[in-house]
Amino acid sequence: MITQAAIATFDSLDLDCGVTLAPVDVAYETYGELNADKSNAILIEHAFSGNAHAAGDDGWWANMIGPGKGFDTDRYFVICSNVLGGCRGTTGPGSINPATGAPWAMTFPPITITDMVRLQKKLIDSFGITKLLAVAGGSMGGMQALEWAVAYPDSVRAALPIATTSRHSAQQIAFNEVGRQSIMADPDWNDGNYYDQRPPARGLSVARMVGHITYMSDESMRQKFGRRLRAGQNKFEVESYLQYRGSQFVDRHDSQGGFDANSYIYITRAMDSYDLTQRGSLPKLFENIKTRFLVMSFTSDWLYPAYQSLEVVSALRSRNCDVAYCSLTSQYGHDAFLVEVNEQTELVRGFLASTFREAVK
Amino acid sequence: MITQAAIATFDSLDLDCGVTLAPVDVAYETYGELNADKSNAILIEHAFSGNAHAAGDDGWWANMIGPGKGFDTDRYFVICSNVLGGCRGTTGPGSINPATGAPWAMTFPPITITDMVRLQKKLIDSFGITKLLAVAGGSMGGMQALEWAVAYPDSVRAALPIATTSRHSAQQIAFNEVGRQSIMADPDWNDGNYYDQRPPARGLSVARMVGHITYMSDESMRQKFGRRLRAGQNKFEVESYLQYRGSQFVDRHDSQGGFDANSYIYITRAMDSYDLTQRGSLPKLFENIKTRFLVMSFTSDWLYPAYQSLEVVSALRSRNCDVAYCSLTSQYGHDAFLVEVNEQTELVRGFLASTFREAVK
Repeated sequence: MITQAAIATFDSLDLDCGVTLAPVDVAYETYGELNADKSNAILIEHAFSGNAHAAGDDGWWANMIGPGKGFDTDRYFVICSNVLGGCRGTTGPGSINPATGAPWAMTFPPITITDMVRLQKKLIDSFGITKLLAVAGGSMGGMQALEWAVAYPDSVRAALPIATTSRHSAQQIAFNEVGRQSIMADPDWNDGNYYDQRPPARGLSVARMVGHITYMSDESMRQKFGRRLRAGQNKFEVESYLQYRGSQFVDRHDSQGGFDANSYIYITRAMDSYDLTQRGSLPKLFENIKTRFLVMSFTSDWLYPAYQSLEVVSALRSRNCDVAYCSLTSQYGHDAFLVEVNEQTELVRGFLASTFREAVK
Repeated sequence: MITQAAIATFDSLDLDCGVTLAPVDVAYETYGELNADKSNAILIEHAFSGNAHAAGDDGWWANMIGPGKGFDTDRYFVICSNVLGGCRGTTGPGSINPATGAPWAMTFPPITITDMVRLQKKLIDSFGITKLLAVAGGSMGGMQALEWAVAYPDSVRAALPIATTSRHSAQQIAFNEVGRQSIMADPDWNDGNYYDQRPPARGLSVARMVGHITYMSDESMRQKFGRRLRAGQNKFEVESYLQYRGSQFVDRHDSQGGFDANSYIYITRAMDSYDLTQRGSLPKLFENIKTRFLVMSFTSDWLYPAYQSLEVVSALRSRNCDVAYCSLTSQYGHDAFLVEVNEQTELVRGFLASTFREAVK
């Protein structure tokens, strides 16, 4: 698989809040080869804590992207970029504010899902791609897939919003708020000014622990841990697991280092504030959309429950849009979009193949 | 309603861990009058963060306990005591260790649900009550109701375990562990030694916020908050609510003051470690039990899902025990046992009346 990792820099990006960021970096990776008429490009959108490294060794969706896989890099040119506000190469609160020479920290302007997608549009334009074959992503990535279809309907042949929603519920906002409060309760957070000192590792770790509970299901936790005790310790396996995942998030033992706590705050706020319906009812927004949709949800996903996907599907159907919806049976909760490879692969492969046949007609 | 509030002191209490606490205080309240043959006593068990003040002004179950209410104080003598390990008058980690003259803090011995019930038995014995008419409680209180029936089957005519389980699932343990980690991540926790300085208010507040999300349902949060913003603030209503509930827990504006963070740790550990099935299968444990049961769960309670109540009910039925089970339709999640008064009142009133008729035969 031909793989490239790079950082693109754009002169400026206008944000929804009115501020213009200048310049802006975007870290991205590509897999496979763009064909001559540039009709085989697929943009993959990562979830909240993801990054541009979607495929290859340790890629967060390596089981779905590669030669012969659901997103088949022998046929398609796959692009994945780190989101605006992130901490994996794209401009975010940990980046240097050119006006001060110091990290933005909490002076970074508030960002939105729409801003993230606007920056991705620049990246896609820079490749000379006028129409993406597909945009696909789960969770926050699915929000971006929806946003692409609504904001740039002529630039997307197909959208695959997976385990996602057009707007967060009160419960989803609540869980994110707990994470933010946990970070901000850590004295080391220091109002976001920790880049030259100890980061708020404890607060960030607890935030991540909460996240992991919401990504799993009651059933998958029972099967994975039950009430088993950790050997030799007076501690439940599930406690050790959460502590491990929390500390791993804070202090990753790879080149990327830990996740940036301020990015956690900015990105979760972008998710919470996103509400497609603020621009009109969903049926109205989908009125003139030619984009094809494959919408998927998972039976045990209680964080992004199926009814949220069905809201999108119903609106698309009411406007006679081309939409396929699959509720996949899984016990893995929200994590299912990352682990239920077999069924997703079949669905994605067929959906992309028929979209591609249309594209090259 | 005749009300009494008092503290009973017992010489000693043997704990499951092998330690003997001496002496032990128990804060309790009583409502109504004990009849001549002491056959009308009902023990009410509070949930995790509750206390002995169950009825009357601001009582946590005031809507269920009182003259003419479900637990009718014109007919019954109702007792409620603060649990062992608590911070509302009963001996706990914030109490003085007589051997040192300083608060126990984290040197307090580990406690169990069984220990809590053993202490309650002493309290009941001190009233000269040989057989309780009923033991009732929701959540952790329901665990204690189950424990009473199994540990002292001849001392309980009827048990009402509500929205509860015979053992925590991995998910329930996980949410409690996040709360504990949040407290312990707060530098002010100081390994539990904060009684003469600033308590870990921020960590405790975040722990409580997580708790509140799990007590509500997706639906009840949607109805109560939706995506409404707080007037004049760039903040969701649900965020303000959680922050308020978190800080209120830490710094209550009444005579009781804030909840003790070490009690949070000790009591949640007692809940997590509780597993009735360690003493044998549930059917086996219920083999010779004459206690009558009214088991209730709530449709939207995802923290203590109905299947956990049904496990208990199935086991009781398999041994031909006298058990009624009601799944009550509610949108209030786990909080339903505190707010769904009407249906519970009818069920409790009828169940207690028939039990009492049997008792005085």
